[in-house]
Amino acid sequence: MFSGAQISLYPMTDRFVDVILSALPAFDPYREKLRIETDDISTLIVGTPDVVFAAMRDLYVSGSADGIHAVLHATISRGCPGEPDDPMCHTEALTGPVLPLAERKASALQAVASAPVTGRAAAAQFSLYVMGTGDHMEEIYGCIDFLKNSGVFDRSKNFCTRVKGDAGAVFATIHEAFVRFGPPNGHVTIDLTVSANSPSAI
Amino acid sequence: MFSGAQISLYPMTDRFVDVILSALPAFDPYREKLRIETDDISTLIVGTPDVVFAAMRDLYVSGSADGIHAVLHATISRGCPGEPDDPMCHTEALTGPVLPLAERKASALQAVASAPVTGRAAAAQFSLYVMGTGDHMEEIYGCIDFLKNSGVFDRSKNFCTRVKGDAGAVFATIHEAFVRFGPPNGHVTIDLTVSANSPSAI
Repeated sequence: MFSGAQISLYPMTDRFVDVILSALPAFDPYREKLRIETDDISTLIVGTPDVVFAAMRDLYVSGSADGIHAVLHATISRGCPGEPDDPMCHTEALTGPVLPLAERKASALQAVASAPVTGRAAAAQFSLYVMGTGDHMEEIYGCIDFLKNSGVFDRSKNFCTRVKGDAGAVFATIHEAFVRFGPPNGHVTIDLTVSANSPSAI
Repeated sequence: MFSGAQISLYPMTDRFVDVILSALPAFDPYREKLRIETDDISTLIVGTPDVVFAAMRDLYVSGSADGIHAVLHATISRGCPGEPDDPMCHTEALTGPVLPLAERKASALQAVASAPVTGRAAAAQFSLYVMGTGDHMEEIYGCIDFLKNSGVFDRSKNFCTRVKGDAGAVFATIHEAFVRFGPPNGHVTIDLTVSANSPSAI
């Protein structure tokens, strides 16, 4: 299994370099559990999904302080057949037997209910892709049903689903969508956008 | 068939609202061929892939004028089973018989060679996802082979491929990747990031 994300932080300010550099210490608690590589377009973080999502959440919270309009984008992936197996990505969450869809939805809801509260609002949208199986839409519809009961569901849009609420619950919900649906050893990806402090927010 | 994209423009400046509003006339030549809906996270554009990519390219060029560091992100999709069929998205490019992979690669290269030159550099990375078929990796490897010969290939990264060059060739290349690979009536998506004027560009 190989899992991780290509992430980018876009602070809409002249001081974007300073905002990004000031936000990077948010990674510190996770550095031993992540492989991190940066270039001019994005930063790769490789690790287990729980660590990857916690690091993204904390980076988002740090990068959107002081009311700055900032957006975090992430291309998240697990199980891509073109990537090498990596011990750093091993997690029991993706090695057990596949439970029935209803049980997975219940576990996902429980995880979201116990997510930490960050105090930072998040407006997010994401697309979940499950590759290589004939019944990928069944898993996606199961995931959508979980989302509608997650407490952060906002609305469906073309090509994606909107969620909103405290960043803790929002990132926990998307993490659950990522690990609970689709085959455990399958190729699953998420295209995620999280927006803070937009002046055009409804 | 239903095709289009959720797009967002992120100008890294205090004047981001003005930059976005000033860039929007780039859509004008395409408005009759697109359905456009905006909210605080992204703008939906629905239409045939050729029009969608031309509109994105022109928005990118307009939104990154004057050396501003700006990023365009797009979640691009065709053939999603959950979306309604739309006559606005009908195109002969996706209704003919499936040609052999080698012929499709040759046609894609020809299209990139005749792309307009915009004079604006683009550093991009994207992930191509082909859903619901057992052989999705074969189509992706075929696409990667095309990319390596496209003239804008930069390098492979985890989870995505980097391309760089004039925005005309870059958007043409990604358009070709989107329409020539994967089944014509299949569900194919792209997670695309295009960056202009990054101060950390190599």
